[in-house]
Amino acid sequence: MIIAKPLTAAGFAAYGDVIEAAGAPSFMINAGKCTRFHDLARMDCDGGRMGISLAHAMPCEMPLTLTMIERHPLGSQMFMPLNDAPFLVVVSDGPSATPRAFLTNGAQGVNYHRGTWHGVLTPLFAPQSFLIVDRIGAGSNVQEHFFQTPFRITIPDA
Amino acid sequence: MIIAKPLTAAGFAAYGDVIEAAGAPSFMINAGKCTRFHDLARMDCDGGRMGISLAHAMPCEMPLTLTMIERHPLGSQMFMPLNDAPFLVVVSDGPSATPRAFLTNGAQGVNYHRGTWHGVLTPLFAPQSFLIVDRIGAGSNVQEHFFQTPFRITIPDA
Repeated sequence: MIIAKPLTAAGFAAYGDVIEAAGAPSFMINAGKCTRFHDLARMDCDGGRMGISLAHAMPCEMPLTLTMIERHPLGSQMFMPLNDAPFLVVVSDGPSATPRAFLTNGAQGVNYHRGTWHGVLTPLFAPQSFLIVDRIGAGSNVQEHFFQTPFRITIPDA
Repeated sequence: MIIAKPLTAAGFAAYGDVIEAAGAPSFMINAGKCTRFHDLARMDCDGGRMGISLAHAMPCEMPLTLTMIERHPLGSQMFMPLNDAPFLVVVSDGPSATPRAFLTNGAQGVNYHRGTWHGVLTPLFAPQSFLIVDRIGAGSNVQEHFFQTPFRITIPDA
Protein backbone atom coordinates (compact mmCIF):
# COMPACT_ATOMS: atom_id res chain seq x y z
CA MET A 1 0.00 0.00 0.00
CA ILE A 2 1.31 3.42 -0.96
CA ILE A 3 0.53 6.15 1.57
CA ALA A 4 0.26 9.68 0.18
CA LYS A 5 2.66 12.25 1.58
CA PRO A 6 1.92 15.95 2.03
CA LEU A 7 2.44 17.81 -1.23
CA THR A 8 5.38 20.19 -1.14
CA ALA A 9 7.07 22.17 -3.89
CA ALA A 10 10.41 20.49 -3.15
CA GLY A 11 8.99 16.97 -3.15
CA PHE A 12 7.06 17.59 -6.35
CA ALA A 13 9.73 19.51 -8.27
CA ALA A 14 10.74 16.59 -10.47
CA TYR A 15 7.14 16.25 -11.69
CA GLY A 16 5.76 19.74 -11.84
CA ASP A 17 4.85 22.89 -9.97
CA VAL A 18 2.74 23.31 -6.87
CA ILE A 19 0.30 26.19 -7.33
CA GLU A 20 0.03 27.80 -3.92
CA ALA A 21 0.30 31.13 -2.12
CA ALA A 22 3.36 30.08 -0.16
CA GLY A 23 5.79 32.41 1.55
CA ALA A 24 5.79 36.12 0.97
CA PRO A 25 3.72 37.51 -1.89
CA SER A 26 5.66 38.50 -4.99
CA PHE A 27 4.23 42.01 -4.92
CA MET A 28 1.17 44.08 -4.16
CA ILE A 29 -1.29 45.22 -6.79
CA ASN A 30 -4.48 47.32 -6.84
CA ALA A 31 -3.18 50.08 -4.59
CA GLY A 32 -2.18 47.64 -1.88
CA LYS A 33 -5.54 45.87 -1.66
CA CYS A 34 -4.33 42.71 -3.36
CA THR A 35 -1.30 40.47 -2.98
CA ARG A 36 -0.01 38.59 -6.00
CA PHE A 37 1.95 35.34 -6.01
CA HIS A 38 3.50 35.59 -9.42
CA ASP A 39 4.34 33.16 -12.20
CA LEU A 40 3.89 29.88 -10.35
CA ALA A 41 3.92 27.37 -13.19
CA ARG A 42 6.08 26.38 -16.12
CA MET A 43 3.58 26.40 -18.95
CA ASP A 44 4.89 24.44 -21.87
CA CYS A 45 3.28 23.79 -25.22
CA ASP A 46 4.66 22.11 -28.35
CA GLY A 47 2.41 23.25 -31.18
CA GLY A 48 -1.23 24.06 -30.57
CA ARG A 49 -1.93 26.65 -27.87
CA MET A 50 -2.68 26.74 -24.17
CA GLY A 51 -6.34 26.98 -23.20
CA ILE A 52 -8.54 27.31 -20.16
CA SER A 53 -11.14 24.69 -19.30
CA LEU A 54 -13.15 23.47 -16.33
CA ALA A 55 -13.59 19.93 -15.06
CA HIS A 56 -16.01 18.42 -12.61
CA ALA A 57 -14.66 15.15 -11.25
CA MET A 58 -16.29 12.41 -9.20
CA PRO A 59 -14.59 11.28 -5.99
CA CYS A 60 -12.52 8.11 -5.71
CA GLU A 61 -12.84 5.58 -2.94
CA MET A 62 -9.86 5.12 -0.66
CA PRO A 63 -7.79 3.01 -0.92
CA LEU A 64 -7.50 3.88 -4.58
CA THR A 65 -6.91 1.07 -7.04
CA LEU A 66 -4.54 2.67 -9.54
CA THR A 67 -4.91 0.81 -12.81
CA MET A 68 -3.29 3.30 -15.17
CA ILE A 69 -1.17 6.38 -15.56
CA GLU A 70 -0.95 8.77 -18.47
CA ARG A 71 1.25 11.53 -19.79
CA HIS A 72 1.03 14.36 -22.28
CA PRO A 73 4.12 14.60 -24.48
CA LEU A 74 3.14 17.92 -26.05
CA GLY A 75 2.19 20.12 -23.13
CA SER A 76 1.99 20.89 -19.43
CA GLN A 77 -1.30 20.52 -17.61
CA MET A 78 -2.47 22.53 -14.61
CA PHE A 79 -5.29 21.66 -12.24
CA MET A 80 -6.48 24.12 -9.61
CA PRO A 81 -9.34 23.09 -7.29
CA LEU A 82 -12.18 25.58 -7.00
CA ASN A 83 -12.91 24.79 -3.37
CA ASP A 84 -10.68 24.21 -0.36
CA ALA A 85 -10.79 20.43 -0.27
CA PRO A 86 -7.62 18.32 -0.52
CA PHE A 87 -7.23 15.92 -3.43
CA LEU A 88 -4.86 13.09 -4.22
CA VAL A 89 -2.02 13.59 -6.72
CA VAL A 90 -0.32 10.54 -8.23
CA VAL A 91 2.82 10.75 -10.35
CA SER A 92 5.39 8.26 -11.56
CA ASP A 93 8.91 8.11 -12.91
CA GLY A 94 7.62 5.76 -15.59
CA PRO A 95 5.61 2.64 -16.35
CA SER A 96 8.02 0.34 -14.52
CA ALA A 97 8.41 2.55 -11.43
CA THR A 98 6.35 2.55 -8.27
CA PRO A 99 4.03 5.56 -8.33
CA ARG A 100 4.34 8.37 -5.81
CA ALA A 101 1.30 9.83 -4.12
CA PHE A 102 0.83 13.27 -2.60
CA LEU A 103 -2.06 14.79 -0.68
CA THR A 104 -2.76 18.48 -1.21
CA ASN A 105 -3.53 20.73 1.74
CA GLY A 106 -6.74 22.12 0.26
CA ALA A 107 -5.23 25.35 -1.03
CA GLN A 108 -2.85 23.77 -3.54
CA GLY A 109 -3.10 22.99 -7.22
CA VAL A 110 -0.60 21.24 -9.45
CA ASN A 111 0.96 21.84 -12.85
CA TYR A 112 2.29 18.62 -14.38
CA HIS A 113 5.28 19.35 -16.52
CA ARG A 114 5.19 18.15 -20.09
CA GLY A 115 5.75 14.41 -20.17
CA THR A 116 5.16 13.70 -16.47
CA TRP A 117 3.39 10.41 -15.89
CA HIS A 118 0.39 10.97 -13.63
CA GLY A 119 -2.91 9.53 -12.50
CA VAL A 120 -6.24 11.06 -13.40
CA LEU A 121 -8.00 13.63 -11.22
CA THR A 122 -8.67 12.10 -7.83
CA PRO A 123 -11.03 14.04 -5.56
CA LEU A 124 -11.72 12.56 -2.14
CA PHE A 125 -15.13 12.07 -0.54
CA ALA A 126 -17.07 14.49 -2.78
CA PRO A 127 -17.19 15.77 -6.35
CA GLN A 128 -14.73 18.57 -7.01
CA SER A 129 -14.36 21.21 -9.69
CA PHE A 130 -11.04 22.28 -11.16
CA LEU A 131 -9.77 24.96 -13.47
CA ILE A 132 -7.50 23.43 -16.12
CA VAL A 133 -4.82 25.15 -18.18
CA ASP A 134 -3.47 22.79 -20.79
CA ARG A 135 -2.60 22.38 -24.42
CA ILE A 136 -5.33 22.48 -27.04
CA GLY A 137 -4.44 21.47 -30.56
CA ALA A 138 -3.91 18.74 -33.09
CA GLY A 139 -1.50 15.87 -32.57
CA SER A 140 -1.36 12.87 -30.28
CA ASN A 141 -0.99 14.34 -26.80
CA VAL A 142 -1.88 11.45 -24.53
CA GLN A 143 -0.07 8.23 -23.79
CA GLU A 144 -1.56 5.71 -21.37
CA HIS A 145 0.04 2.87 -19.46
CA PHE A 146 -2.07 0.15 -17.85
CA PHE A 147 -0.50 -1.79 -14.98
CA GLN A 148 -0.62 -5.58 -15.04
CA THR A 149 -1.01 -5.45 -11.28
CA PRO A 150 -2.77 -2.31 -10.03
CA PHE A 151 -1.25 -0.32 -7.18
CA ARG A 152 -3.16 0.40 -4.01
CA ILE A 153 -2.87 3.96 -2.74
CA THR A 154 -4.41 5.64 0.26
CA ILE A 155 -4.21 8.79 2.33
CA PRO A 156 -3.11 8.95 5.99
CA ASP A 157 -5.83 7.94 8.44
CA ALA A 158 -8.22 6.93 5.67
CA MET B 1 -25.78 54.79 -8.92
CA ILE B 2 -24.91 51.85 -11.18
CA ILE B 3 -26.56 48.57 -10.13
CA ALA B 4 -24.70 45.41 -11.11
CA LYS B 5 -26.52 42.96 -13.36
CA PRO B 6 -26.13 39.19 -13.30
CA LEU B 7 -23.07 38.14 -15.29
CA THR B 8 -23.96 36.23 -18.45
CA ALA B 9 -21.82 35.13 -21.38
CA ALA B 10 -24.01 37.06 -23.80
CA GLY B 11 -23.98 40.27 -21.78
CA PHE B 12 -20.22 40.08 -21.27
CA ALA B 13 -19.22 39.00 -24.79
CA ALA B 14 -18.01 42.43 -25.87
CA TYR B 15 -15.58 42.52 -22.95
CA GLY B 16 -14.41 38.97 -22.47
CA ASP B 17 -15.32 35.40 -21.64
CA VAL B 18 -17.28 34.03 -18.70
CA ILE B 19 -15.50 31.01 -17.24
CA GLU B 20 -18.29 28.71 -16.14
CA ALA B 21 -19.56 25.17 -16.44
CA ALA B 22 -22.69 26.19 -18.33
CA GLY B 23 -24.84 23.91 -20.43
CA ALA B 24 -23.78 20.44 -21.42
CA PRO B 25 -20.18 19.42 -20.82
CA SER B 26 -17.96 19.37 -23.88
CA PHE B 27 -16.99 15.76 -23.29
CA MET B 28 -16.22 13.16 -20.66
CA ILE B 29 -12.71 12.27 -19.58
CA ASN B 30 -11.15 9.83 -17.13
CA ALA B 31 -13.31 6.86 -18.11
CA GLY B 32 -16.52 8.78 -17.55
CA LYS B 33 -15.67 9.96 -14.03
CA CYS B 34 -15.03 13.55 -15.07
CA THR B 35 -16.86 16.06 -17.24
CA ARG B 36 -14.86 18.70 -19.09
CA PHE B 37 -16.06 22.13 -20.19
CA HIS B 38 -13.51 22.80 -22.87
CA ASP B 39 -11.64 25.87 -24.10
CA LEU B 40 -13.62 28.59 -22.36
CA ALA B 41 -11.39 31.62 -22.86
CA ARG B 42 -9.70 33.49 -25.67
CA MET B 43 -6.15 33.70 -24.39
CA ASP B 44 -4.27 36.41 -26.21
CA CYS B 45 -0.69 37.51 -25.78
CA ASP B 46 1.40 39.97 -27.79
CA GLY B 47 5.00 39.16 -26.99
CA GLY B 48 5.98 37.73 -23.63
CA ARG B 49 4.13 34.57 -22.56
CA MET B 50 1.06 33.59 -20.58
CA GLY B 51 1.63 32.65 -16.96
CA ILE B 52 -0.25 31.37 -13.94
CA SER B 53 -0.40 33.38 -10.71
CA LEU B 54 -2.51 33.64 -7.59
CA ALA B 55 -4.01 36.73 -6.01
CA HIS B 56 -5.52 37.34 -2.60
CA ALA B 57 -7.74 40.40 -2.67
CA MET B 58 -9.39 42.39 0.10
CA PRO B 59 -13.12 43.06 -0.07
CA CYS B 60 -14.60 46.35 -1.22
CA GLU B 61 -17.37 48.18 0.57
CA MET B 62 -20.67 48.58 -1.22
CA PRO B 63 -21.52 50.94 -2.77
CA LEU B 64 -18.17 50.91 -4.52
CA THR B 65 -16.56 54.24 -5.33
CA LEU B 66 -14.97 53.55 -8.70
CA THR B 67 -12.10 55.99 -9.11
CA MET B 68 -10.23 54.31 -11.95
CA ILE B 69 -10.24 51.71 -14.68
CA GLU B 70 -7.33 50.03 -16.40
CA ARG B 71 -6.58 47.95 -19.46
CA HIS B 72 -3.83 45.69 -20.72
CA PRO B 73 -2.97 46.37 -24.36
CA LEU B 74 -0.70 43.34 -24.71
CA GLY B 75 -2.68 40.46 -23.27
CA SER B 76 -5.87 38.92 -21.96
CA GLN B 77 -6.31 38.42 -18.22
CA MET B 78 -8.31 35.69 -16.54
CA PHE B 79 -9.52 35.64 -12.93
CA MET B 80 -11.11 32.54 -11.43
CA PRO B 81 -12.27 32.65 -7.79
CA LEU B 82 -11.10 29.76 -5.62
CA ASN B 83 -14.25 29.69 -3.53
CA ASP B 84 -17.92 29.92 -4.37
CA ALA B 85 -18.50 33.55 -3.44
CA PRO B 86 -19.78 36.10 -5.97
CA PHE B 87 -17.62 39.08 -6.86
CA LEU B 88 -18.22 42.31 -8.71
CA VAL B 89 -16.97 42.75 -12.29
CA VAL B 90 -16.68 46.26 -13.72
CA VAL B 91 -15.91 46.94 -17.38
CA SER B 92 -16.16 49.95 -19.64
CA ASP B 93 -16.29 50.88 -23.29
CA GLY B 94 -13.69 53.54 -22.57
CA PRO B 95 -12.65 56.43 -20.36
CA SER B 96 -15.59 58.61 -21.43
CA ALA B 97 -18.23 55.90 -21.16
CA THR B 98 -20.33 54.94 -18.16
CA PRO B 99 -18.95 51.71 -16.70
CA ARG B 100 -20.98 48.50 -16.68
CA ALA B 101 -21.14 46.29 -13.61
CA PHE B 102 -21.85 42.60 -13.36
CA LEU B 103 -22.28 40.33 -10.37
CA THR B 104 -21.01 36.76 -10.70
CA ASN B 105 -23.08 33.85 -9.42
CA GLY B 106 -20.30 32.37 -7.29
CA ALA B 107 -19.25 29.73 -9.81
CA GLN B 108 -18.09 32.11 -12.54
CA GLY B 109 -14.74 33.61 -13.45
CA VAL B 110 -13.93 36.13 -16.15
CA ASN B 111 -11.36 36.48 -18.88
CA TYR B 112 -10.92 40.09 -19.96
CA HIS B 113 -10.01 40.26 -23.60
CA ARG B 114 -6.89 42.15 -24.53
CA GLY B 115 -7.55 45.87 -24.27
CA THR B 116 -10.81 45.69 -22.29
CA TRP B 117 -11.12 48.53 -19.79
CA HIS B 118 -11.95 47.07 -16.38
CA GLY B 119 -11.92 47.76 -12.67
CA VAL B 120 -9.59 46.00 -10.27
CA LEU B 121 -10.55 42.80 -8.43
CA THR B 122 -13.60 43.48 -6.31
CA PRO B 123 -14.49 40.82 -3.76
CA LEU B 124 -17.54 41.42 -1.61
CA PHE B 125 -17.77 41.07 2.16
CA ALA B 126 -14.63 38.94 2.64
CA PRO B 127 -11.14 38.44 1.22
CA GLN B 128 -11.09 36.20 -1.84
CA SER B 129 -8.42 34.26 -3.67
CA PHE B 130 -8.21 34.02 -7.45
CA LEU B 131 -6.21 32.08 -9.97
CA ILE B 132 -4.89 34.43 -12.65
CA VAL B 133 -3.79 33.58 -16.18
CA ASP B 134 -2.26 36.60 -17.85
CA ARG B 135 0.66 37.88 -19.84
CA ILE B 136 4.11 37.95 -18.30
CA GLY B 137 6.84 39.78 -20.13
CA ALA B 138 8.56 43.03 -20.94
CA GLY B 139 6.75 46.05 -22.34
CA SER B 140 4.17 48.47 -21.05
CA ASN B 141 1.06 46.37 -20.46
CA VAL B 142 -1.06 48.57 -18.24
CA GLN B 143 -2.91 51.79 -18.96
CA GLU B 144 -4.89 53.50 -16.23
CA HIS B 145 -7.64 56.08 -16.42
CA PHE B 146 -8.70 58.06 -13.35
CA PHE B 147 -12.18 59.57 -13.38
CA GLN B 148 -12.61 63.22 -12.52
CA THR B 149 -15.86 62.26 -10.83
CA PRO B 150 -15.89 58.72 -9.45
CA PHE B 151 -18.80 56.42 -10.25
CA ARG B 152 -20.86 54.77 -7.55
CA ILE B 153 -21.62 51.10 -8.11
CA THR B 154 -23.53 48.64 -6.00
CA ILE B 155 -25.06 45.18 -6.11
CA PRO B 156 -28.78 44.42 -5.86
CA ASP B 157 -30.12 44.49 -2.29
CA ALA B 158 -26.81 45.73 -0.88
